[in-house]
Amino acid sequence: MDKVALGIDLGGTKLDAGIMNGSGNLIARIRCQTEAQKGPKSDIDKIKFVIKSLIEQQVSQKHDIAGIGIGVPGFIDADNGKIITLTNLAGWDDMPLSDIIKNTFKLPVEIDNDANAAAYGEYLFGSGRDTNNFFYMTVSTGIGGGMIISGKPYHGANYGAAEIGHIVIDINGEKCNCGNYGCFEAMASGTAMANFAKKHIGMGEISIIHKLTSNGHIKAEHIFDAAKKGDNLANKLIYKEALYLGIGISNVIAMYNPDRIAVGGGVSNQWDVLYPKIAKEVENRALKHNLKSCDIIKAELGPNAGVIGAAALILR
Amino acid sequence: MDKVALGIDLGGTKLDAGIMNGSGNLIARIRCQTEAQKGPKSDIDKIKFVIKSLIEQQVSQKHDIAGIGIGVPGFIDADNGKIITLTNLAGWDDMPLSDIIKNTFKLPVEIDNDANAAAYGEYLFGSGRDTNNFFYMTVSTGIGGGMIISGKPYHGANYGAAEIGHIVIDINGEKCNCGNYGCFEAMASGTAMANFAKKHIGMGEISIIHKLTSNGHIKAEHIFDAAKKGDNLANKLIYKEALYLGIGISNVIAMYNPDRIAVGGGVSNQWDVLYPKIAKEVENRALKHNLKSCDIIKAELGPNAGVIGAAALILR
Repeated sequence: MDKVALGIDLGGTKLDAGIMNGSGNLIARIRCQTEAQKGPKSDIDKIKFVIKSLIEQQVSQKHDIAGIGIGVPGFIDADNGKIITLTNLAGWDDMPLSDIIKNTFKLPVEIDNDANAAAYGEYLFGSGRDTNNFFYMTVSTGIGGGMIISGKPYHGANYGAAEIGHIVIDINGEKCNCGNYGCFEAMASGTAMANFAKKHIGMGEISIIHKLTSNGHIKAEHIFDAAKKGDNLANKLIYKEALYLGIGISNVIAMYNPDRIAVGGGVSNQWDVLYPKIAKEVENRALKHNLKSCDIIKAELGPNAGVIGAAALILR
Repeated sequence: MDKVALGIDLGGTKLDAGIMNGSGNLIARIRCQTEAQKGPKSDIDKIKFVIKSLIEQQVSQKHDIAGIGIGVPGFIDADNGKIITLTNLAGWDDMPLSDIIKNTFKLPVEIDNDANAAAYGEYLFGSGRDTNNFFYMTVSTGIGGGMIISGKPYHGANYGAAEIGHIVIDINGEKCNCGNYGCFEAMASGTAMANFAKKHIGMGEISIIHKLTSNGHIKAEHIFDAAKKGDNLANKLIYKEALYLGIGISNVIAMYNPDRIAVGGGVSNQWDVLYPKIAKEVENRALKHNLKSCDIIKAELGPNAGVIGAAALILR
């Protein structure tokens, strides 16, 4: 029987799950919305339902499910399979998620931070292949990171390493969700881009950005769309985004001296527009010696990174 | 015969060397000035002279010298024992320092970056004992760093890791020697403190700082002296220094999630004055989860860290 693993990527608004084979291919997939406002019990029931459905699909395939890997958006105690706290989901503090799933399905369960899991997935089956020091950065509503050193996720003292979203890059910058000011996430996430757009438009700057939204709610993608139509403010915001991303990447290069940095997450869908500008900033700012040995590329697994990475926690 | 190792700490203005025993104690020591302006040949001759003198001293002690470790201020290719480039010393590019010393003394030779070596020394014999994830930061004329993961220095792709001095913390900050702007080193080193003092005094701010110098040349220590006498500008600059150090330390906590950070270098001599202010900044800024598992302390080995760390490259 082929060994496969089940991967779960729990997000703030959605639950993404799949079955991965030993080559890193997803051979089954289930996606659904989470209901954060109902509290963790409702979402744990959804997780169980999704796992049950995927397992049932595999019975007929005669696949041997080696275990269940789960990536969660927050801080965990992997040794005890417990969640410490989740970033945008309330009520999960100290949740023994691993035991809950293990007791229900009698399978090995591993949990990790979602960005760490995605980094591991990219390392094994995507943009991080054949590296010794690989940094993965995900830029979407927030900014997360994961560092793989000599083939293993680097977790630090309590599974909080590579939190690139929360390094200060601008001492006078915007307030961050973490309470600090000028964090990379508060300056360069998709949310930050949208916030900057709102601010400028609120101050009377002329732009078509808000006309491209269906409900007036600006997202980063509307800024990129407006830029394609020649919108000045949009182009200014994209330049700013590339500047901040260039600084964040240069900081990673100084701190971890990786041989590759891959950028994933929603904002990385605009890689063709952003990369030339990012590369110029990095060229001007990063330590020359460290930059010489570092590729900066777009992540490969796209929206699959989380599920593949979670499954890889089992099938490593 | 007791096994001992010879350690060399090459600096921009001085050469510090010693013999270390297996317990991390320096049992012999030679310090002298370097003559950077004369080029590397003169300094290499000095290094050889110092090594020869220390070896001769040990013959009568019947110590077995296991090898020679050398810490240098810059980027190295440790696999080939070569210097890539030194930060404040010209003419050293591509210098095969390891072979030069090996051929002369017929002993094993190891080289590393000076901050990495000092970090390793602190880890084995000082402030980093009994840690799994230890970050050492040296704050003096520049700012360097070294990270020890599971008992080994983390070097990254080409021995450039943990260059904390060159992460941007203030996008609008001062120009750095590396060419970038707002680097931690450009904002928080002893040199940066002195530069801020000169700037303020140049703009007419009233202060006794320059009166405490012998030759009008302000150094960080004069600022701390002036603060003790109630100087307003000096107190303002110390607050600023603690703010920047707090941000730099919070960034390390986010990126490496260490279980301990030790601060060494000249500025750390003012730990009693700085620490309460740093702790407050870190409390406000660092990721709560990561901070929970992290001590922030003064490094223990003081001016001996470099030599002990270099010798430890041999006697690990």
